[in-house]
Amino acid sequence: MERDLIAKIQRLAGVPIRDPSVLVSIGDDCAVVAPSPDCHLIITTDTLVESIHFDLDYFDPWHLGRKTAAVNLSDAGAMGGHPRWAFLNLAVRPGMTDRFWDSFSKGLLSRLSEYGVSLVGGDTVSAPNKLSLSLTLIGEVKKGKWLSRSRAQPDDLIYCSGNLGEAAAGLELLRKYKERRSPFKGRKGTGISRAVLKRLVNRHLDPEPRVTLGQALAANGMVQTAIDVSDGIATDLAHICKNSRVGAEVRAREMPVSRALERTSGILGISSLDLALTGGEDFELLWTVSQKNEPEVRKIAAKILGYRPFRIGKIVQGNRVILKTSQGTKDITYQGYEHYFRHF
Amino acid sequence: MERDLIAKIQRLAGVPIRDPSVLVSIGDDCAVVAPSPDCHLIITTDTLVESIHFDLDYFDPWHLGRKTAAVNLSDAGAMGGHPRWAFLNLAVRPGMTDRFWDSFSKGLLSRLSEYGVSLVGGDTVSAPNKLSLSLTLIGEVKKGKWLSRSRAQPDDLIYCSGNLGEAAAGLELLRKYKERRSPFKGRKGTGISRAVLKRLVNRHLDPEPRVTLGQALAANGMVQTAIDVSDGIATDLAHICKNSRVGAEVRAREMPVSRALERTSGILGISSLDLALTGGEDFELLWTVSQKNEPEVRKIAAKILGYRPFRIGKIVQGNRVILKTSQGTKDITYQGYEHYFRHF
Repeated sequence: MERDLIAKIQRLAGVPIRDPSVLVSIGDDCAVVAPSPDCHLIITTDTLVESIHFDLDYFDPWHLGRKTAAVNLSDAGAMGGHPRWAFLNLAVRPGMTDRFWDSFSKGLLSRLSEYGVSLVGGDTVSAPNKLSLSLTLIGEVKKGKWLSRSRAQPDDLIYCSGNLGEAAAGLELLRKYKERRSPFKGRKGTGISRAVLKRLVNRHLDPEPRVTLGQALAANGMVQTAIDVSDGIATDLAHICKNSRVGAEVRAREMPVSRALERTSGILGISSLDLALTGGEDFELLWTVSQKNEPEVRKIAAKILGYRPFRIGKIVQGNRVILKTSQGTKDITYQGYEHYFRHF
Repeated sequence: MERDLIAKIQRLAGVPIRDPSVLVSIGDDCAVVAPSPDCHLIITTDTLVESIHFDLDYFDPWHLGRKTAAVNLSDAGAMGGHPRWAFLNLAVRPGMTDRFWDSFSKGLLSRLSEYGVSLVGGDTVSAPNKLSLSLTLIGEVKKGKWLSRSRAQPDDLIYCSGNLGEAAAGLELLRKYKERRSPFKGRKGTGISRAVLKRLVNRHLDPEPRVTLGQALAANGMVQTAIDVSDGIATDLAHICKNSRVGAEVRAREMPVSRALERTSGILGISSLDLALTGGEDFELLWTVSQKNEPEVRKIAAKILGYRPFRIGKIVQGNRVILKTSQGTKDITYQGYEHYFRHF
């Protein structure tokens, strides 16, 4: 079974791979690749575990493959890097079908190929009872030109690339309805239209990694600090604050909350603001920019996104993440979803 | 717990890391490292899963950490590469103690540091009920100078860096006696001395990756084909044969079987030849060399190993791995331990 699975992945990955930087691909003790001159390497790795990060009741294999790629691509984007080579660790439990792996692999490769990434190695092991999927991405960034979490400065403005909280709402809906084959149907009586349901659920199943945006921000040189929103901004902003030794203030009325989320949060019984601040896995890009560079950077981001990015607050002295509301202020440092994965 | 665990790993890994090639380590969206000019990158990744690859009844955490490193270091060695940066994926099940992770991390780092490898990233996730450990190693090799599985030629001689079958015997002994705290005691009545038990068990718990040897063979240029013995040479030689489109003949009487193995195999009720041919995880290096280059290469290997390497057979036309015994010949292609991991 495992040898068949590797042969399948090898075939789907197009081995021998056409990418001229890949000198040895799947099928030797190591992969061998040729890095570009004038670049540093960026490397990231993330794992998804069945019943912790996903449930096959509502996650189809194709989307699972795409998401395995997307969570890692998102980290590469948050460094402003160009992801290039991927490595897959599969822990396969009993009861998985060929069809599942076929679809999973196609989904994974579809997302990787959008960014020119070649799958060049990995391993498969047996797992006693839960599926586990790790992907490691190696990428490149021009020497010294990466985005980090550690260069935010007081008075910098905080920007976000898209609506927040939708992925968390989508997950709630998926857990509630558990419809794997047709999760996108509208629900009579709930007041949730098919379009809204599809949109929110898709934010969880098929998040859009902000790779191109991160690359543009890094190349421009006017932005030096960014992170992707995986644990909710209350926590992800706290990471920036900790690494940069600053504080942050965000305004409740500036949170990017979509009408779709507004409508749905009432039905779910969770406030849309809470979802936006603490909901994980939106995979939007969060960056800070000096007031001087703001107009230019906003233009660059708007061109790539197709809409204006959201200014949600600013960097201040201190070490806390503070939420400002019409009722006053609240410390939300590390109040994001106590997430089930921790990238390090 | 997981945040504590990362802080612990970070502290033990010595972050900020002194290695000048490490520009961003644990604590950002990606690690950033500076590769050397004139090198290609080699990358390998392997996973160990509890109850499949190891059992905490007999595997102490320190050795588990060392082995997690060693299985990957061994692959880097088999390419003739210099491993440099490591990434760890931990799937942590309930019930693990701080002390366990402390010891595991120290073991892992002890093996990595022997080869100058810095641990610079990874992730931790919760696992429902079984521990899972993946390590990814990135290394370097002078441009074009790697060892592969695909350049063996008829009439090449096949060499092996050490005794075979001992790790498999060690595993049998561990499973039989399951003594985690003191697996090294002699057993009255079995006829196995403490020294023999310790030696065999240690081959399974703490295999020696042949990194320095692989590097020397690659640098010399007289060897181009190698593999590490993870699935038993019946299978690992078959990999070389498949990738190089050749066959191999090995002689039963030339198999490197130690006296320790001879003595123990009788007690275990498995023939020492079977253990040597099909037992996994010896992590010895297997290489092929032309007859012309043999004397020089043998000298280089002997200098590093401290003993003469073992010539076990030769490459021939065809596509099978054939065992020659005093009784005749036997096809042993892919007859290695149908192993529980498959590197790809």
